[in-house]
Amino acid sequence: MKTAKNLLLAVILGYALIITSPVRAQRSTSTLVTSNQPNLMPVPASVQMQAGRLAITSAFSVATKNYTDNRLRAGISRMISRLAGRTVLSLPLDLAADESAATLVVQCARAGEAVPSVDENESYSLEITDKQARLVAPTVVGALRGLETFLQLLEGDRDGFYVQGLKIQDQPRFPWRGLLIDVGRHYEPMEVLKRNLDAMAAVKLNVFHWHLTEDQGFRVESKKYPKLHLMGSDGLYYTQDQVREIIAYARDRGIRVMPEFDIPGHSTSWLVGLPELGSAPGPYKIERGAGIFEPALDPTREQTYKVLDGFLGEMAALFPDAYMHIGGDENEGKQWDRNPQIQAFMKEKGIKDNHALQAYFNQRLLKILQKHGKKMVGWDEILHPDLPKDAVIHSWRGQAALAEAARRGYNGILSNGYYIDLIFPAAQHYRADPLPADSTLTAEEAKHVLGGEATMWGEWVSPETIDSRIWPRTAAIAERLWSPRTVTDVDDMYRRLAVISRQLEELGLTHEKSFDMMLRRLAQREDIGPLRTLGSVIEPVKEYRRYQMRPQTMLSPLTGLVDAARPDSETGRQFAAIVDDFLSDVPRFELYRPDIGNTLEEWRLAGLALGPMIDRSPALQEARPLAHDLADIAEAGLEAMSHLSAGDAATTEWRDGQLAKLEEAAKPKAGVEFVVILSVRKLVIAAFELPQLKTSTPADWKKRVTMLATPIKR
Amino acid sequence: MKTAKNLLLAVILGYALIITSPVRAQRSTSTLVTSNQPNLMPVPASVQMQAGRLAITSAFSVATKNYTDNRLRAGISRMISRLAGRTVLSLPLDLAADESAATLVVQCARAGEAVPSVDENESYSLEITDKQARLVAPTVVGALRGLETFLQLLEGDRDGFYVQGLKIQDQPRFPWRGLLIDVGRHYEPMEVLKRNLDAMAAVKLNVFHWHLTEDQGFRVESKKYPKLHLMGSDGLYYTQDQVREIIAYARDRGIRVMPEFDIPGHSTSWLVGLPELGSAPGPYKIERGAGIFEPALDPTREQTYKVLDGFLGEMAALFPDAYMHIGGDENEGKQWDRNPQIQAFMKEKGIKDNHALQAYFNQRLLKILQKHGKKMVGWDEILHPDLPKDAVIHSWRGQAALAEAARRGYNGILSNGYYIDLIFPAAQHYRADPLPADSTLTAEEAKHVLGGEATMWGEWVSPETIDSRIWPRTAAIAERLWSPRTVTDVDDMYRRLAVISRQLEELGLTHEKSFDMMLRRLAQREDIGPLRTLGSVIEPVKEYRRYQMRPQTMLSPLTGLVDAARPDSETGRQFAAIVDDFLSDVPRFELYRPDIGNTLEEWRLAGLALGPMIDRSPALQEARPLAHDLADIAEAGLEAMSHLSAGDAATTEWRDGQLAKLEEAAKPKAGVEFVVILSVRKLVIAAFELPQLKTSTPADWKKRVTMLATPIKR
Repeated sequence: MKTAKNLLLAVILGYALIITSPVRAQRSTSTLVTSNQPNLMPVPASVQMQAGRLAITSAFSVATKNYTDNRLRAGISRMISRLAGRTVLSLPLDLAADESAATLVVQCARAGEAVPSVDENESYSLEITDKQARLVAPTVVGALRGLETFLQLLEGDRDGFYVQGLKIQDQPRFPWRGLLIDVGRHYEPMEVLKRNLDAMAAVKLNVFHWHLTEDQGFRVESKKYPKLHLMGSDGLYYTQDQVREIIAYARDRGIRVMPEFDIPGHSTSWLVGLPELGSAPGPYKIERGAGIFEPALDPTREQTYKVLDGFLGEMAALFPDAYMHIGGDENEGKQWDRNPQIQAFMKEKGIKDNHALQAYFNQRLLKILQKHGKKMVGWDEILHPDLPKDAVIHSWRGQAALAEAARRGYNGILSNGYYIDLIFPAAQHYRADPLPADSTLTAEEAKHVLGGEATMWGEWVSPETIDSRIWPRTAAIAERLWSPRTVTDVDDMYRRLAVISRQLEELGLTHEKSFDMMLRRLAQREDIGPLRTLGSVIEPVKEYRRYQMRPQTMLSPLTGLVDAARPDSETGRQFAAIVDDFLSDVPRFELYRPDIGNTLEEWRLAGLALGPMIDRSPALQEARPLAHDLADIAEAGLEAMSHLSAGDAATTEWRDGQLAKLEEAAKPKAGVEFVVILSVRKLVIAAFELPQLKTSTPADWKKRVTMLATPIKR
Repeated sequence: MKTAKNLLLAVILGYALIITSPVRAQRSTSTLVTSNQPNLMPVPASVQMQAGRLAITSAFSVATKNYTDNRLRAGISRMISRLAGRTVLSLPLDLAADESAATLVVQCARAGEAVPSVDENESYSLEITDKQARLVAPTVVGALRGLETFLQLLEGDRDGFYVQGLKIQDQPRFPWRGLLIDVGRHYEPMEVLKRNLDAMAAVKLNVFHWHLTEDQGFRVESKKYPKLHLMGSDGLYYTQDQVREIIAYARDRGIRVMPEFDIPGHSTSWLVGLPELGSAPGPYKIERGAGIFEPALDPTREQTYKVLDGFLGEMAALFPDAYMHIGGDENEGKQWDRNPQIQAFMKEKGIKDNHALQAYFNQRLLKILQKHGKKMVGWDEILHPDLPKDAVIHSWRGQAALAEAARRGYNGILSNGYYIDLIFPAAQHYRADPLPADSTLTAEEAKHVLGGEATMWGEWVSPETIDSRIWPRTAAIAERLWSPRTVTDVDDMYRRLAVISRQLEELGLTHEKSFDMMLRRLAQREDIGPLRTLGSVIEPVKEYRRYQMRPQTMLSPLTGLVDAARPDSETGRQFAAIVDDFLSDVPRFELYRPDIGNTLEEWRLAGLALGPMIDRSPALQEARPLAHDLADIAEAGLEAMSHLSAGDAATTEWRDGQLAKLEEAAKPKAGVEFVVILSVRKLVIAAFELPQLKTSTPADWKKRVTMLATPIKR
């Protein structure tokens, strides 16, 4: 017992600050043990479990049947490499000659579309017995989707690795399942794009929406108008060779690449090199701020259309996708209002307002796109009676706008609800359905709803942090867009998301591993325990509040605590769950009591230990109030637990004092906010409401506690 | 105290398994506190601390004086970005116009060599007062070196960030300080090379030795002989554009790029496309194994020299460096022995053996290099009376061979002692000096010793693991090659190495962050506590034993425990230090007692917890005996501590039993070995030797314990 005593001593001295959250350990273990369902994400259209299991050993081999091509071979080879990496088995990378002896047979009918397309057949079926796995798909793209499913099925136990016997029949619910990456505001190196394409393929997303131009950067090489990228990008742009490399890389994974050139607004970077296209005289400088800016192309000058024809023609040849996104959003037209020439033009042509002027611009733009064989995609703003029916409305407004467009015969995709830059939890995105159950669209109209796209707007992401803003949450959006509408169990989604998140790491994604590294840099030391604890219970503030609280420019470092902090705290979610279970265990209050107690104690000690850490590292200065808050939160919780365990009700005075402290702690600081306040409020309220327990049912009592603890929306 | 009791309970139940090593926490904190010396690595030639400090705030700015060019501007801009990243301050990236108001003034005289060269002047001086920092250098390269020093000087406390007042006068001891990366055996993507070039620059290395061809891969595009790379590389090669990109990237950082084309042996991959150059008929396949292989170029055929002239001429134009490395090592000539044509040729020319035949080959090769304006570098084997004096001998044999070459007037560089692939600790490399204190070379002869190179041979490295095999140990080698010979304090080196290692992370190096990720993949779970504990006290086996114990091919996954495990365990080093301190604290045995106890208890619990973890993850199967060993090691240590604390001597039987268990645990398994056995043996021996303490001095007693615990070299 001496050693245990020493350990206790050490705990009191602060060593235990470096414990990682007991909550987390406890919950992830239990989910592994309790579930029999395969960890598939997205959930296939149909899964039937069967008896038996197929062993995965070093004798694993793959054979192809019927159609085989380089894309399929490369896809199989990548799958085998990942399987080998996960199992640490040396697997033969070459295809097996003998189909009957192969572990997995991939049977394709044809290549699929030469250029990845919205019409691609992505369906596949997979049957696994104890003898063999058989993947059947009409196209190579379907087979690639099935290979990802196969990889997700890998499991292991004392007897080795295996995939469970089952039958899967699968196809996507929506044909357009995208991820927008805004490289305009912050440039992202090639390897960042590539690893994100790998991750997209892993969760069956099929459109990389490459947001290439913004006020803050013009990121694609134009050989026709080199001033655009040379003067508008700080040298941070993709050469046309690199663009082709990305397109080929995406195609290899059955992913379309749709470029976006956002005009007439969001175009400052164009005007640095070509000020003559602007609606005000210039000169222009690359925008460094965040927000909506005035510069806009001049829609009244023929020169504008000449350049657009040249540039978009060049891009149309570079990007093989059938669609081109022209943005069209957030142009407030202030430059137009102030330009007498533009005003004269409007008067002359009878254009009554800026909206109509932009419609005129879009009409001209449409002809240019049509000339170069492209269909137009744009934000809600482009919807206009003259818009042809092969255009696609990209909706930031929401399902109603999308449904309205569909009724008028327009194809549409949804991004409202999928703005991952706003730092909402995956559950919230998961609930957004492009075609909700209560939709009143006819079956025919509903076909116009093509799918949706997660949007990674780039104001506050760097190569170090972007993965953690995209993943794993985007996997939940991918599931919404692929799986049947009825797949809506949020708990089950999170259970699977944790597994998929780890698998994404094998593709080089840094959403997990950048966290500790950034904390080490902030702390300027190796042992970051207390800071890690703090980091586990905070999230960056939501929506656009980060910039309001902590203004920065596009040139500012993205290395602060707010950047290390991640959306959708798992610790917060799990703490909420065990606190709810604990409060349901009335009047004993034993369920998860040690876990909650240990966790709160860990927070308390971390709060104390952070002080000296902050003293040594000025980069953590802004975290000082958070350290105090963390200790306060923990103490409130510990005292409440103490009341509940002893069956000794707290006084009004105590409750009010604790709630006041929690109110203070709930205020965002340093661009982050605590995610565990509500649960601790529940504990505090419950400690005070103990006497009510005797006079009401436990269920009513718990409801009352929850109601009282939940803050009224301000 | 309730919570503390719960925590104790939790500890006993196993929660505490996820504590990270208390040893580590304790030691790194203390080093931070105790040292007043700046954390510079390599240590400059001369440092004089001065009063005052220069605050680093968001008003930080840099001005240049006299000579400025794009390379200098880019270097300053990178420095500012890193400074901003570390401080989370928004710093202006543009140069300040007003020298007198700038925080840092960089004063250069000239560009330096157009192509980075062994004759480059890399010296600089840096003076920091409370008003300004002034960096003066004759060349831009010297200024780049000084900027790295400046970055290393950044410190912080409650009052903010600052650099301490001082005067530095610095220049390298050796002009050739290299890192060889073997991309032949395993290809490394461009971003791996780039981040390693960044790391090299950070520790003032100046030669990237690019080992481009091997039996297992021909990694450079040849437009003249495309069969070489197309058939010899599995498609994994660098295009000539990429080569130029790396050269420019390196030049920007003042780093030479010297290519190596290893011939006449190590050349299987050449012969896949051009079998007619081989000394046996072929056909040849890309080699997948590790070892020394028979294929060698045929030195008796004119066609061989014709192709070499064409290919090396092409490469001479591609690589601007004055030197070209032709390998020349490990050709055993077995193909030559068996080829009657070659035998006839030797007889005809009077060439008496294979060594002489290789000398003939080298003579021909030399003429080709000279024709293309390159000086020859090759391994010891190339030394021959006809070798011109501008060649460089690259010694894997050692200082004596180097000295002998120097006496004969040849320039040489050392790699013996710097084979980082052999997994020795940094301390060992640190002690290897190209020009040791006892060298008998005259000053003139000594000038021929140009420096040295760390060699990252590529048998068992992947993009995920290579950084952890190179860094941070190579920083110690960089110091050996830059700093004065008298800088030899190993403890101080390790103290600074820990700081530098963290700083390397900001450049994208993955030596730290890949560790947890790989453990998560192995465990297929998030909470890897016990596995992390195991990982902290093991190292991959040394020298070439990995392959003997755990044979793999170049296509095998490098994702096992041996790959996650890292060289030079910090926990092992620190545990050894505190055990020594503890044993010196006779007869009280109190110094570090709780730390050692906690650490051993953590190991014991981890050993127990690993079992169920391994059950769930077949990829960890091979770690099962290690889990038992870890528990055994911990128990032996805990029992010994118990004896020592109680002053109660252990029996012979107990000692023998413990030593037998430790003997078993000391046997490498799964390609890894424990690094803490010697310290635990000391504890066991000490527990038994307690009675001797009464009859000898504490110092003698401790010496005896150490002597008895140290295994006899077998």
